[in-house]
Amino acid sequence: MIESTANTGRILAEYRLSCPPAEAEDLARKIAYEQTVELPESLVTNTLIRDQVAGRVESVFQAGQAMSARISYNPELCSRQLSQLLILLFGNVSLYPGVRLVSMQLPEGLLSAFRGPAFGIDGVREMLGVYGRPLLATAIKPRGLPLTQMTAMAAGFARGGGDIIKDDQNLADDLPAFKERVTACFEAVAAANAKTGGNCLYFPHISAPADQLETRFQYAQGLGVRGVLLCPMVYGLDSICSLANRYGLVVMAHPALSGGFTGNHTQGIDHGLLLGTLFRLAGADISIFPSFGGRFSYTPEECRGIRDRLQEPLGNIRCALPAPAGGMQYDNLPELCRFYGAESVFLIGGALQAEGPDLETTTRAFRDRLLEYFPERLRPPAGALVSACEIPDRNVSPLRGLLKYLEGFHWQDRRAIDYKPNNTLPFHAVKRVELMGQHGEQTAFDLRYFEIGPGGYTSLERHRHTHVVIGVRGIGKLLAGERRETLGYLDIAYIGPMEVHQIRNEAEEPFGFFCIVDHRRDRPLAP
Amino acid sequence: MIESTANTGRILAEYRLSCPPAEAEDLARKIAYEQTVELPESLVTNTLIRDQVAGRVESVFQAGQAMSARISYNPELCSRQLSQLLILLFGNVSLYPGVRLVSMQLPEGLLSAFRGPAFGIDGVREMLGVYGRPLLATAIKPRGLPLTQMTAMAAGFARGGGDIIKDDQNLADDLPAFKERVTACFEAVAAANAKTGGNCLYFPHISAPADQLETRFQYAQGLGVRGVLLCPMVYGLDSICSLANRYGLVVMAHPALSGGFTGNHTQGIDHGLLLGTLFRLAGADISIFPSFGGRFSYTPEECRGIRDRLQEPLGNIRCALPAPAGGMQYDNLPELCRFYGAESVFLIGGALQAEGPDLETTTRAFRDRLLEYFPERLRPPAGALVSACEIPDRNVSPLRGLLKYLEGFHWQDRRAIDYKPNNTLPFHAVKRVELMGQHGEQTAFDLRYFEIGPGGYTSLERHRHTHVVIGVRGIGKLLAGERRETLGYLDIAYIGPMEVHQIRNEAEEPFGFFCIVDHRRDRPLAP
Repeated sequence: MIESTANTGRILAEYRLSCPPAEAEDLARKIAYEQTVELPESLVTNTLIRDQVAGRVESVFQAGQAMSARISYNPELCSRQLSQLLILLFGNVSLYPGVRLVSMQLPEGLLSAFRGPAFGIDGVREMLGVYGRPLLATAIKPRGLPLTQMTAMAAGFARGGGDIIKDDQNLADDLPAFKERVTACFEAVAAANAKTGGNCLYFPHISAPADQLETRFQYAQGLGVRGVLLCPMVYGLDSICSLANRYGLVVMAHPALSGGFTGNHTQGIDHGLLLGTLFRLAGADISIFPSFGGRFSYTPEECRGIRDRLQEPLGNIRCALPAPAGGMQYDNLPELCRFYGAESVFLIGGALQAEGPDLETTTRAFRDRLLEYFPERLRPPAGALVSACEIPDRNVSPLRGLLKYLEGFHWQDRRAIDYKPNNTLPFHAVKRVELMGQHGEQTAFDLRYFEIGPGGYTSLERHRHTHVVIGVRGIGKLLAGERRETLGYLDIAYIGPMEVHQIRNEAEEPFGFFCIVDHRRDRPLAP
Repeated sequence: MIESTANTGRILAEYRLSCPPAEAEDLARKIAYEQTVELPESLVTNTLIRDQVAGRVESVFQAGQAMSARISYNPELCSRQLSQLLILLFGNVSLYPGVRLVSMQLPEGLLSAFRGPAFGIDGVREMLGVYGRPLLATAIKPRGLPLTQMTAMAAGFARGGGDIIKDDQNLADDLPAFKERVTACFEAVAAANAKTGGNCLYFPHISAPADQLETRFQYAQGLGVRGVLLCPMVYGLDSICSLANRYGLVVMAHPALSGGFTGNHTQGIDHGLLLGTLFRLAGADISIFPSFGGRFSYTPEECRGIRDRLQEPLGNIRCALPAPAGGMQYDNLPELCRFYGAESVFLIGGALQAEGPDLETTTRAFRDRLLEYFPERLRPPAGALVSACEIPDRNVSPLRGLLKYLEGFHWQDRRAIDYKPNNTLPFHAVKRVELMGQHGEQTAFDLRYFEIGPGGYTSLERHRHTHVVIGVRGIGKLLAGERRETLGYLDIAYIGPMEVHQIRNEAEEPFGFFCIVDHRRDRPLAP
């Protein structure tokens, strides 16, 4: 039914403000002006500039312990440039105390300006011919190994069934040494592949003074390398990824330096927004981050945020692979499998070396353990993308007797789906978690959890099968036939056969609801 | 006399650790291994790698409320690349909670790998023909102004005697609009210069998708533009500055996004290290930062740190200009003049516009106020650079009846000197503050405060005039003739005529001391 909702065509940014509630409105207005006209409001007398250039405070509200402000910006201000988008959203206010950029929404017109991953999940899997399980990756380290030991590591990992072996980000050398090292590692992996019939990929680290970067990319490409390890926060998020893109190389992005932004919860940029959305917009096919449970400090919630941002709908931008690292042990693989699901890269460095001196054997042990949880499939899952409700979940999570509820409307062993928008039945800002029914459960129904962001809406559609909807978070609007319902906490709605329906979120907090639907069902139709 | 001191040829980094004292040693060792071999210590069995590649914890000590650790690194690990130096010093540990990189010292051999400012203070002043006072700069803003108003601003500022007018970092456009705008502003400033006989400079903001950056630099250079505004934290610290360097353009660096690193005192990177040393190493001739007293949150101590790092000795790297901004008002100019001294750029945006609608008039008023504090000289100060004690202070601070002592061994109205090393009488890690005698005081002596960093030393020298030295901070070693003295708190030493002498710091904290010397004196000689 009916008109498209609150999508105003503006950029929407949310900032978490660590300030007294009474000061939040004022701070939000300061941010809106700082980031656009960079003058106090009183000096902006030109009404056109006030209306068209200055940011707009859309809402200010309490968010847990802190305040939150949503500010919208004219997308023209970033001139279709990713770097300028960073400046617009966070350039100067990065210098304000107690202001953290926690999320953003970009209008479709602006999203189309960004390249995103050149390969994405599908492209990387196609190179490997591996589907339905996390990829297994490792790093060549420590720095200081003689070249013969480096190539032995690369070959052993490839023979053991590993998928991606990358240089450590500490590996840096002059051009002749780079060429010698990269050639030797590439050839070692190629020789191992020839023996096993596998497709293990070797990604060298590209690191050089700025004016010598292209020479390195050229050399790697000429050698037949398919991807590279890059440090976008060191070399410029847009700059370095676009170079890799020009040479047709998969981008595996390393988070070096990013902790400066993500580490403190009262400032900087949200983990998922930076290492998920922004890395993805820049063109990262794989985003490395420190997993919870390891030697770094990320929480499960933060890791989930990164993973979800890499795979949520984002215009026509491809989905990317999260690569949790730094805490991946043989013993916690089952937990990590449940948590990250199939569409991920397990980057295992020290733990692989710690399990024994023969990398081929330890790699095989890790790989076999992954296969216990994810029966490997050799073909990508097929499936027509139809609506917000029906786009298939790529993530074949295992069947579980108990899905433990985690704070923040998440469930252990289940994650938000990585579907893509489609243009025939539009929807906006919808996340879906397949809770039960799609993982081998013997049920006649599927239980899903949907969450619609502010201004979002599900597809306007009709079908013969019915829905039962239960509100659990925030407040939503249901349009069904002639009905206009408000759905609050534990309100339950029924949507009958062929009733044209849509659920919208016109509030400022997410609207979350369970939706129960027949397991076998017809495909939705346009109204 | 004698051998050069503790300079081991290694990179020395200091990290502030927010952890219980009992855990600091362990955390320091983790950092040393994380940043180099990225493996737990137990897995590094190769002794060559342990000795040559792994970082070394040099010391762990209490520093105020927190702990501090000094870790040294083999300089070969950064492969003479600035980006790799960032990765080595802070790449992964940026992701550790409670670890802040507070300082670094680079061996001379490594310093020579970095270009530093192509123009520096001397080069920028030569373009302007202005010496002995802070430069006056402003920004073209707000975004959204019609081009005719932008050019009117630029012309008015130039006619009023301003020195540098830069684009706002929010100005971004496609190539045709960029060309039109930059040409018009450049020509407006040139026309005003032709009338006044001045040399006002216009610096456009270079902002584009990565693969289109060079076109912009080329266009600006072809037009006759002498410098550019850049956002190094957005475009990559090394990447963007080296492009400007290639086109022979002065780099005015904007701190957009840098607050993510500097803002929280228990993580990230020290203000002075990032916006001072690292920006300078990358090639910034001018580094913009938010001044204390304005709408941002920087403290005087943080601003002083940036200013000092831009101008302290750093191999053969040129000194750069601090450009305090964001809090520069007509009313606080006297305080700012005292604080920042002559070798700075006062970037005044909103305040210039707030003082009245006619930018020519308000610019002139600000400039006249600066001239009250700094009588303008039209020639650079001459003076042979001789030793750590004698290199003249470029900063002609005004005479003051009272120099208020500020925490951390600073004095109000006086700043550490921006001298350069010279090769005939080497010294290392020495800061000097001319307290009394060089600002017009009618004394037969000069009172100076020196501070020598760990491992540092003054020139080994002799002269007819004598010294009186008073220890006030830490512990130093005095070599004078055959004497070897330890100088502690309030120890006072006398150095006689022609006594060959040197003061060294072999401890791990700075050694600070007063040195009183004849106002009229002979030049030091080599031993």
